[in-house]
Amino acid sequence: MIETLKKYLAIQPIVPYRRLKEVNDKRLNTKLEFAKTVVRDAGAYLKAHLADDLEISEKTHFDDLVTNLDGEVQDAIIAKIQETFPDDHILAEENDVRHDINDGNVWVLDPIDGTTNFIVQKDNFAVMLAYYESGVGKLGIILDVMNDNLYWGDGQTSYRNSTELQLTAKPLAQSLIGVSAYMYRTNAGGLFDLSHKCLGVRAIGSAGIEYTNILDGKIWGYFSNLSPWDYAAGAVLIAPFGYTTLKLDGSPLDFQGRQMVMSIPENYRIVLSETKSI
Amino acid sequence: MIETLKKYLAIQPIVPYRRLKEVNDKRLNTKLEFAKTVVRDAGAYLKAHLADDLEISEKTHFDDLVTNLDGEVQDAIIAKIQETFPDDHILAEENDVRHDINDGNVWVLDPIDGTTNFIVQKDNFAVMLAYYESGVGKLGIILDVMNDNLYWGDGQTSYRNSTELQLTAKPLAQSLIGVSAYMYRTNAGGLFDLSHKCLGVRAIGSAGIEYTNILDGKIWGYFSNLSPWDYAAGAVLIAPFGYTTLKLDGSPLDFQGRQMVMSIPENYRIVLSETKSI
Repeated sequence: MIETLKKYLAIQPIVPYRRLKEVNDKRLNTKLEFAKTVVRDAGAYLKAHLADDLEISEKTHFDDLVTNLDGEVQDAIIAKIQETFPDDHILAEENDVRHDINDGNVWVLDPIDGTTNFIVQKDNFAVMLAYYESGVGKLGIILDVMNDNLYWGDGQTSYRNSTELQLTAKPLAQSLIGVSAYMYRTNAGGLFDLSHKCLGVRAIGSAGIEYTNILDGKIWGYFSNLSPWDYAAGAVLIAPFGYTTLKLDGSPLDFQGRQMVMSIPENYRIVLSETKSI
Repeated sequence: MIETLKKYLAIQPIVPYRRLKEVNDKRLNTKLEFAKTVVRDAGAYLKAHLADDLEISEKTHFDDLVTNLDGEVQDAIIAKIQETFPDDHILAEENDVRHDINDGNVWVLDPIDGTTNFIVQKDNFAVMLAYYESGVGKLGIILDVMNDNLYWGDGQTSYRNSTELQLTAKPLAQSLIGVSAYMYRTNAGGLFDLSHKCLGVRAIGSAGIEYTNILDGKIWGYFSNLSPWDYAAGAVLIAPFGYTTLKLDGSPLDFQGRQMVMSIPENYRIVLSETKSI
């Protein structure tokens, strides 16, 4: 059962994101530059093939779609990882590539985040890649493909292209929240009630773009039903700014399947007037 | 009482948008160029003042905001209209400027559409201006300020900057819909049920940007609770592509106050499995 936001928000202790150790810098920097390059290459490939006739398949339902390009991009990035870092492992969206996040060095890949937007809108989609060591986020990369904005960071500092990001979360009452429309409608964890404490909700259909919206100060927080590849990079990128990513009941991420997740300022304290569970 | 979408969608006859007469072209063209210029100037002004400390006031509720720039831009555009076309009338968002749309030549102005986005996001807002004669839409202008995209048209042809737009609506089942989160949540007119017939819903907080998303093929239709200045320009711009804008019960727009409105392909026929009214 999903606990209420109220419970978490009232009592959850602050657990700062674990910081990168200095000793890792050089090795990690090599992986960071590698990751930025493969993600940029993937974005260029997707842009070049944007007007192609796509092969579109249903996964679980008519509105859960995948294209031939999701698979092509994933296969290309996995091949490069395996060639460059043969001892590393991979957790990726397509084709059941599912290495345990807690076991060794793991790359987490979403080749096209917001596939429906990619198909319908040719906009508002992202390529996301993260790198974790024994379950701890070390690198996060999100490419907003159509805006040519590459967000990247090591958990200590985050950049948009060559600009180091500065972010101080606005008060909730002066900002907006990004939501899953379903969770908003059903008041999951009290999310609909929470929406009354802010200026409104936005739903754009890509976790990656929602994380860039947090980084750009456009939304205060993000609440959705996500798989590990949806939040792995975003969680690293928002950590330097006092943001935390947790399951909706306030417990730590476990990277197990699809779960309701929230990314919010870790010092957030509010008692909702009315909360409901689903 | 709001009728169901089902009723409209099953029986509403097709009423094509009234076309511009040739004889009006020269006079209208003068007004079109005037409108494009004042809207572009307004956008440049807003961009130049984006980093200013805003004076923010509540209108009806803490989440219904207006800034000093809404008023400044509106006053500037109204002054230019009155100077250039002294016999024309004005219907505008701020300060109760409310000329009857059916009485003579009426400019319809929204100085900042998506004011909350303007305040919080510094993105996803629009300047909108329309021109109507005796209640018939003649010109529509929407400026997506931060993307520097000016959408403009005369009801026969629509452009994005210098590009003539071509739009054929995708089938509903292969596209997305733009919604008011409130109407989606409460299933107004069967909107939640309708959402199951498509690939998902998007909520972005600006009617103007939603209309540009229709024009760019990013959403199939748009359903929201709108005032005349929210839909006056959009309704003209989408008309050339077989789109119609109606009250949610299928009756014609009346430009009276805030109402639930939909902009959809006019040849749309579907029977929803289950509909509810609010």
